[in-house]
Amino acid sequence: MGDYEIFELGGFVLQQGATLRGAKLAYKTYGELNRSKDNAIVYPTWYSGQHYDNEWLIGENMALDPRKYFIIVPNMFGNGLSSSPSNTEPPYDRARFPHVTLYDNVTAQHRLVTEKFGIKKLKLVLGWSMGAQQTFQWGALYPEMVERILPFCGSARTSRHNFVFLEGVKAALTADDAWQNGWYEKQPYKGLRAMARVYAGWGFSQAFYREKLDLKMGYSSLEDFLVAFWEGFFLRRDANNLLAMLWTWQHGDISANPVCHGDFEKALRSITAKAIVMPGQTDLYFPPEDNEYEAKHMPNAEFRPIPSIWGHFAGGPGTNPEDVKFIDKAIRELLSR
Amino acid sequence: MGDYEIFELGGFVLQQGATLRGAKLAYKTYGELNRSKDNAIVYPTWYSGQHYDNEWLIGENMALDPRKYFIIVPNMFGNGLSSSPSNTEPPYDRARFPHVTLYDNVTAQHRLVTEKFGIKKLKLVLGWSMGAQQTFQWGALYPEMVERILPFCGSARTSRHNFVFLEGVKAALTADDAWQNGWYEKQPYKGLRAMARVYAGWGFSQAFYREKLDLKMGYSSLEDFLVAFWEGFFLRRDANNLLAMLWTWQHGDISANPVCHGDFEKALRSITAKAIVMPGQTDLYFPPEDNEYEAKHMPNAEFRPIPSIWGHFAGGPGTNPEDVKFIDKAIRELLSR
Repeated sequence: MGDYEIFELGGFVLQQGATLRGAKLAYKTYGELNRSKDNAIVYPTWYSGQHYDNEWLIGENMALDPRKYFIIVPNMFGNGLSSSPSNTEPPYDRARFPHVTLYDNVTAQHRLVTEKFGIKKLKLVLGWSMGAQQTFQWGALYPEMVERILPFCGSARTSRHNFVFLEGVKAALTADDAWQNGWYEKQPYKGLRAMARVYAGWGFSQAFYREKLDLKMGYSSLEDFLVAFWEGFFLRRDANNLLAMLWTWQHGDISANPVCHGDFEKALRSITAKAIVMPGQTDLYFPPEDNEYEAKHMPNAEFRPIPSIWGHFAGGPGTNPEDVKFIDKAIRELLSR
Repeated sequence: MGDYEIFELGGFVLQQGATLRGAKLAYKTYGELNRSKDNAIVYPTWYSGQHYDNEWLIGENMALDPRKYFIIVPNMFGNGLSSSPSNTEPPYDRARFPHVTLYDNVTAQHRLVTEKFGIKKLKLVLGWSMGAQQTFQWGALYPEMVERILPFCGSARTSRHNFVFLEGVKAALTADDAWQNGWYEKQPYKGLRAMARVYAGWGFSQAFYREKLDLKMGYSSLEDFLVAFWEGFFLRRDANNLLAMLWTWQHGDISANPVCHGDFEKALRSITAKAIVMPGQTDLYFPPEDNEYEAKHMPNAEFRPIPSIWGHFAGGPGTNPEDVKFIDKAIRELLSR
């Protein structure tokens, strides 16, 4: 038993046509929902992260103070806690796990928030990376419900370059024969390690490595950083889960659904929530330019890059205290608007 | 028989200790060496490129005009024409091919230029990418001989981030069991394709993909670009050759040799040649910042980024006409100084 709850979605019909029977949404809450049910915040997870990986931004005396707010952290499909290749019963298990979209994730979370908790308004939705993508999707699908959003280091639509970066990650993982098209009995460790090495150059910026921040983090050498941080990071994961979430990411587009009909700019315009859109200044796969475009098309958005050389990791998971402070301050400001 | 010549190096002792017996330096020349032997230019090749891949920058009415200059294009060790894993006789063949450094490449080229042609002065050394690294190395090792250098999209020392990028490329290639630690009978095609996909995100910039320049190049879709351009690019290569050159690249440092004794800034200061150091403004693995630092430490260097969204491919191989014009103009200016 984990430190989280399960919301039973029943037979959950996915956007691509499959039905996930007995679909599960794993989540954890922090703080108490008040009587008027107007202190709720949704904070979705990121690629391969689980709810506890979001806790660095929650705490007493932080903007996300559980004494004040009711913070719901829903786990993304495919992350190993919510329905995923690794925990789904046959016949939709493992390599046969169906494609899940951003829309599927957010509509499932909406059911949790409304059906389980009876919440009608959200003070804030926020998230890092793919969590930011879910944040944008919340704002576009439920504008009357979402008062504020703060997506950081993530875009409303996965850019073509981001897609290509992910193709490289995927190709490295699946080049390992042990992957066996997803029907492995043991994890394809060589592929997971290769994927980790590919990811290493993308996750942090050129300047991060130039300034040797990996050594300042406490790793004994660059190779130690590649093994202990990066390979360690992905070796804990299930290959099919990683590939399932990767598909979700590659196809991330807040307008690719029956509500927004593929009109991206219209989807952005529909996000009436007060917003601070916050890229990492040196993020290599969610670069600021994409967010800048998006913020311009949102009626109530401020564009505020994180002035950091930590690349994508400016946004999490709490690795650099200065970036945490910058994000926390923005959340505080936004909540006070 | 190819369209190139072979310079026999004999038993060539490499920096790391191995002797390449019967070492060969393949090269091609363009134009005629004049009587005073003062019209020679050296233009080394880049990662996986061969001499003809440099020809886009050579031509009548271009700065590198073969009617005026004697242009020598030496092939880098490991590129399949000069001594390489794929063409070396046992016992130093294939996976046993020894590590070759930047210094080894340039000292071998120096022997060609001096012993074969009796050249005492070079008007110019220039090159793209790893060719730029060889260019810097020429300037640092033979300052009395090299009058001008124009390294484009390459640094005098491989940065730590660049090293990590290459770790990802290598990991993808070698994740394929068919690689067999280099003792394959057939090329590890899956690994070569994976490597290509990893490379795709790095070779061009985020803006390149955002502006869909791949489609403007004539590819029918992003996937077509990944297969036809990128996979096609690497499928023509030998895996051990690629890994040999990758090692050279990862260890690229113009000061890592018995002349410069590991003092990088001193090596830069020793480059007295008139120089234009020319990064691609959006190059993701040879970013302008590294060149800026280097140019500052060189006594006669101008730092002039190529204002292009073509990423690393701003520097070659002649893909974008505007970038070609920009580089050609700089060569012309430098030659007139």
